[in-house]
Amino acid sequence: MERAILEGVIGLLEEGVPLAELSIERIARTAGVGKATIYRRWSGKEELFVDVIRAAEPPEPELPGTSMRDDLLVLLENLRQRGLASRSSALLHNVHAQMKSNPKIWAAYHENVIAPRRALVLDVLRRGQLNGELRPDVDVELANDLFVGPVLVRSVLRPDADLPAGLAEDIVDTVMAGLRPVSSTVSQH
Amino acid sequence: MERAILEGVIGLLEEGVPLAELSIERIARTAGVGKATIYRRWSGKEELFVDVIRAAEPPEPELPGTSMRDDLLVLLENLRQRGLASRSSALLHNVHAQMKSNPKIWAAYHENVIAPRRALVLDVLRRGQLNGELRPDVDVELANDLFVGPVLVRSVLRPDADLPAGLAEDIVDTVMAGLRPVSSTVSQH
Repeated sequence: MERAILEGVIGLLEEGVPLAELSIERIARTAGVGKATIYRRWSGKEELFVDVIRAAEPPEPELPGTSMRDDLLVLLENLRQRGLASRSSALLHNVHAQMKSNPKIWAAYHENVIAPRRALVLDVLRRGQLNGELRPDVDVELANDLFVGPVLVRSVLRPDADLPAGLAEDIVDTVMAGLRPVSSTVSQH
Repeated sequence: MERAILEGVIGLLEEGVPLAELSIERIARTAGVGKATIYRRWSGKEELFVDVIRAAEPPEPELPGTSMRDDLLVLLENLRQRGLASRSSALLHNVHAQMKSNPKIWAAYHENVIAPRRALVLDVLRRGQLNGELRPDVDVELANDLFVGPVLVRSVLRPDADLPAGLAEDIVDTVMAGLRPVSSTVSQH
């Protein structure tokens, strides 16, 4: 039932119906259910849309939990896949753009999708500090931005930029090793 | 004369006139000049707007040229100042948002402002590889994204994120040193 409703909405969006014109009534009619059925599952249009976008995006990854590096590779590779999906899917591209001009839907997406994803990275980094993989003096918020920043910049701000296979590994290993020539790693500023 | 025209446009934008309604004719009338005067200096509305935005933004920085680190600090601090300006100036915030929905103005801004700024960072990084500050095996495009990514992500994608004084230095020194605990910098993956 839930799946049929979400797929009905995806179908309407694929036909080019703008988010703003998608009422709960129209969604109910398309899915062949009553409005009450939709309100039993979702409190409103915003929550429903967040689930629609989730259904259209690559699924959230499972973390291997074997090391901080392994977890980061999976998280960044998932972010890269989302970037690729948003480029290749007219639906996702379209919905992301429309979402940004609708503050309520954007807030719901941020709260239900982006914030938990960010919290997951911060958890992985804190575990890395506990097990000795990550320098204990590094601010995890800054470390988060060093890892995810390059993927987000390429996915969202420079849609013509390369998102090559291997990007996740390049970023993680380069950030971990640092950019200083190896012979000078002992000298500090 | 040029300054008077740019300030006239800034005045109109501050009054809330949308970009789309700003014709060359209206701009000429506001500045008290003929349309020909404007066309002698700018080939069209797009080029004029790029200069308007430049006039409203913090100026491009002068590089000290004393080291890659010094140059990067100045470039990232300038990017942070732009982020702060875009948050505090309703005009800039507004114009940035409108620009993105106007592909011709966005393309002109990208070509005349963003692309040269990016080229400048890449030059600084290449000089760093030549003088031994930057590991020669690092892809300068990736290094660019590691340095500017965190500032851009906070400025553009997370408008509620911190842009503290000292951020530029934190980013540069953390990326240069790497995130691995010091005792394990000799072991490589």
